[in-house]
Amino acid sequence: AATGTQKPLAEALDQLAFNDQGLITAVAQQVDTGEVLMLAWMNRESLEITLKEGRACYWSRSRQQLWRKGESSGQVQWLKEVRVDCDGDALLLLVDQQGPACHTGRRSCFYFDLNGERMEVVKEPMLDPASLYK
Amino acid sequence: AATGTQKPLAEALDQLAFNDQGLITAVAQQVDTGEVLMLAWMNRESLEITLKEGRACYWSRSRQQLWRKGESSGQVQWLKEVRVDCDGDALLLLVDQQGPACHTGRRSCFYFDLNGERMEVVKEPMLDPASLYK
Repeated sequence: AATGTQKPLAEALDQLAFNDQGLITAVAQQVDTGEVLMLAWMNRESLEITLKEGRACYWSRSRQQLWRKGESSGQVQWLKEVRVDCDGDALLLLVDQQGPACHTGRRSCFYFDLNGERMEVVKEPMLDPASLYK
Repeated sequence: AATGTQKPLAEALDQLAFNDQGLITAVAQQVDTGEVLMLAWMNRESLEITLKEGRACYWSRSRQQLWRKGESSGQVQWLKEVRVDCDGDALLLLVDQQGPACHTGRRSCFYFDLNGERMEVVKEPMLDPASLYK
């Protein structure tokens, strides 16, 4: 499709390739620095909430409920843009992350470096995770 | 774990949270610009190949086989770093992408912009996709 081609939102959502659990992967990226913050999952409802409220809302697979990022930690992801990929089975959220994205207090959840010999912790927490959940 | 904490590779791979199909999500990001290029899947073998060969090898869910990125298109992803996330169920690959990552000839697969009203194509192909697969 040519640049500028449009489709109404409802039609676009109908065509997303949610998996057999009704979920789609969502990658959150910090809009100004480009840092990849985390990967999470959305169902259709959480995506609609995200678009409507302007902040990331995921589906928590462990708790089986909607998860407005930051609702307990205060570390909200303000939404700037949402992108869908070529085959409609992944989302990229450009966000402005308040504080750390990770429950360990790190800016990004991707803090283990893996190479042919070992895995190593390569990032420091921004703050004590005990201060995130009171 | 403190910064610098290490674990041998085999032990780290044993602890990755592959899903019930033996797969883990992998996000590919262009190492210098930070552009998120694509999201794909890996099994343990493809991850080991990636680390060994220094270029991204995924597991193709549609073809149910190893997929050395660029093997048919020539658009190889040279590996710079691999990161694992906090709960071990997602990978971030920092790569140097040769040409377009997307089969449509676009640099990134994330070329649909989604907002509260519509979805719109916002990126141009770098080259004619017909030239990628001969």
